[in-house]
Amino acid sequence: MNHTFEQKHGFYIEDLKPGMSATISKAFSEQDVLQYARLSTDDNPLHLDEEFARHARTGGRVIHGMVTASLISAIVGTRLPGPGCLWMSQEMRFVAPVRVGETVTAHAELVELDASRQQARMTTTCTVEGKVVLDGQALMWVPSRTVGYG
Amino acid sequence: MNHTFEQKHGFYIEDLKPGMSATISKAFSEQDVLQYARLSTDDNPLHLDEEFARHARTGGRVIHGMVTASLISAIVGTRLPGPGCLWMSQEMRFVAPVRVGETVTAHAELVELDASRQQARMTTTCTVEGKVVLDGQALMWVPSRTVGYG
Repeated sequence: MNHTFEQKHGFYIEDLKPGMSATISKAFSEQDVLQYARLSTDDNPLHLDEEFARHARTGGRVIHGMVTASLISAIVGTRLPGPGCLWMSQEMRFVAPVRVGETVTAHAELVELDASRQQARMTTTCTVEGKVVLDGQALMWVPSRTVGYG
Repeated sequence: MNHTFEQKHGFYIEDLKPGMSATISKAFSEQDVLQYARLSTDDNPLHLDEEFARHARTGGRVIHGMVTASLISAIVGTRLPGPGCLWMSQEMRFVAPVRVGETVTAHAELVELDASRQQARMTTTCTVEGKVVLDGQALMWVPSRTVGYG
């Protein structure tokens, strides 16, 4: 451990309480969608080709579900619990389409803590203008002030 | 429906059978990780800062779990079932770290079909040199040749 490490570190298990929450919002741009398509190799025309997508069930282009879900990654990795934790699992349901430029708000709330196993469970929800577009839950392993990384 | 749409379209529910599978491999670069950090806003130092990550439980930098999982997005969206399907849900467990430059192989296999509800379930596994780094399952809604998108 050193000073820089501690400065960047997120919550320890002893500092977490049920009900704690975090929120991150972002409107994903055309550029974000193209970059994600390239890095993931997911060039599904539902996300890239308006002519194709108009005929599909979404009735037009939508951003990748995993682009919406990336804001959950951001909450877990930077806010709650934040750096130092390990993301053990994620369940998610993609319940409504999201268009390029719509502001996605991801919200996570701690619902269960298991101090002895150093595990925390959060509900994770993404909304667009108050409408749920993704829901699910995350399980994390969280470092301990006393036990450390053992 | 038109010709271009049909050309780009993936499988219809009538064409799927349990046991069908698809595989995509990619080695994620430094550039991929930086782009994902920017688009997701997930700038967790575990992925970006070797000095921080050396002190964390991973013992060094790892790529975002969601970058590994992006190959599942690619399989669902481009191979099996491919364009036209809707990804309803995904469960995933992140079971081992992945380093920049390691080749991730994502594999999905159809295990359950519900023709009347137009739903297909796949197991989804990502490995690095044969070792499982992510596992889980995906549920998709799949268009029908006869019912279409109703």
